[in-house]
Amino acid sequence: MRLDIRRPAACLILAVIISVAGWRANAQSVPTLYIYSTIDALLAGTYDGDLTIRELRAKGDFGIGTYNRIDGEMIALDGIFYRARADGSVSKASPDERTPLAYVTRFHPKRTINVETALPLSELEKWLDGRLTNLNLFYAVRIDGEFRNVSVRAVAAQVKPYNALAEVVKTQSVHDYPTTHGTLVGIRSPAFSKGIGVPGYHWHFLTQNRQHGGHVLKLILAEGTVQVEAISKIELKLPVNEAFAHADQAIDRTEETRQVEGK
Amino acid sequence: MRLDIRRPAACLILAVIISVAGWRANAQSVPTLYIYSTIDALLAGTYDGDLTIRELRAKGDFGIGTYNRIDGEMIALDGIFYRARADGSVSKASPDERTPLAYVTRFHPKRTINVETALPLSELEKWLDGRLTNLNLFYAVRIDGEFRNVSVRAVAAQVKPYNALAEVVKTQSVHDYPTTHGTLVGIRSPAFSKGIGVPGYHWHFLTQNRQHGGHVLKLILAEGTVQVEAISKIELKLPVNEAFAHADQAIDRTEETRQVEGK
Repeated sequence: MRLDIRRPAACLILAVIISVAGWRANAQSVPTLYIYSTIDALLAGTYDGDLTIRELRAKGDFGIGTYNRIDGEMIALDGIFYRARADGSVSKASPDERTPLAYVTRFHPKRTINVETALPLSELEKWLDGRLTNLNLFYAVRIDGEFRNVSVRAVAAQVKPYNALAEVVKTQSVHDYPTTHGTLVGIRSPAFSKGIGVPGYHWHFLTQNRQHGGHVLKLILAEGTVQVEAISKIELKLPVNEAFAHADQAIDRTEETRQVEGK
Repeated sequence: MRLDIRRPAACLILAVIISVAGWRANAQSVPTLYIYSTIDALLAGTYDGDLTIRELRAKGDFGIGTYNRIDGEMIALDGIFYRARADGSVSKASPDERTPLAYVTRFHPKRTINVETALPLSELEKWLDGRLTNLNLFYAVRIDGEFRNVSVRAVAAQVKPYNALAEVVKTQSVHDYPTTHGTLVGIRSPAFSKGIGVPGYHWHFLTQNRQHGGHVLKLILAEGTVQVEAISKIELKLPVNEAFAHADQAIDRTEETRQVEGK
């Protein structure tokens, strides 16, 4: 097909192409982590957000979070938004569902590292830290491989009035997988982002068959491939609703974060 | 002039217009606070950033910050970037200068409130808090009026090796203005943004003749007009350089912030 820009229709098509290309170039120029709401609001019991998965999907294809009523752990991988529920099942979220907290990016990893030695999670994190040049940036990390002693959790959907998250996780469901192939989806947040993100690594896991997963409590990486992207630009969107407005985000929730993250 | 879209040149002009309009609509849709670097990095002595005032100006026309080597307090007002130096003078920054820390927005205030009772700064802040519906958002605040007992500070340009900011401010210059007309430029940051912003209000002042100003230590608002805009979207850009990478941003700098802010 030849585009004859002397014809009005062709001209409009060209205009739209230039417009979309310009917008995409602008949106894509710097790796960006899109954050919806704050960890402190979630810890305070703000379990209902206004952002749909459709809107979130436009901001990234990779990341972690949860769904309204904290009905399952969110694992965004290759543009698909999975939900790992307390019963151990994994399903795809519908575009109309909403999230109270999410961290997503358009994942374009710049580094790939193979791991051939078994590493428990804490050693894996130290090993990774040693390879990241600037721990005051954010990082998106994807690890595909073979895992052992995987322990993941999810909490059941909550009903109002909501309890604080540190209370809710006391009723969490834990599922164990002695040996499995799968993918770790992780976001590393710098210390100064406390209150907004979880300082250090925050990992969610999905099995290779996409049937199981959840928030990682422990695991051993037997062998696998690590893909990493440094992120220096953050887009933070705060919910404009009553629950977020009244969530107590002035107290120090470091200890609560530790309890909730299972670290 | 009629735009004949059957002609190639007209077609290209149309394409560019659509492209720019689309980009602007996208950029402007939600009030956004652009933040460059973090308060914790500045407290740690990271006084040189890579962002030019030209680049910063594209992100906002209103806000506060400082310049490289902390050579003066930044007051961005009506799109002009003023610098209040330690010697009490105020000048306009050149577009090629750089900043290590800045908070700017495109200011489109949604509320205007007249103040006819004298309010010392701490009472002014309480009075404002009572009028803001969601203290977990950010706010840009502009107050034009008559002020009394104004006390502003600025620090002198530093030379390497840099001391931490809490040390540097011990040598700050303070200038007092018993009665003056002028403008307060303020950003209110929510508690959870500690580490990135200064929780609560952070005020810089500029006299009506734009000849004096600085970081506000104290003042009384005699009478004036308050304009406020709530901001729910933050764009945070972290410097990708050695100084930022090595700034210790893992310790709690609440007390340092208090010292430095003069609160």
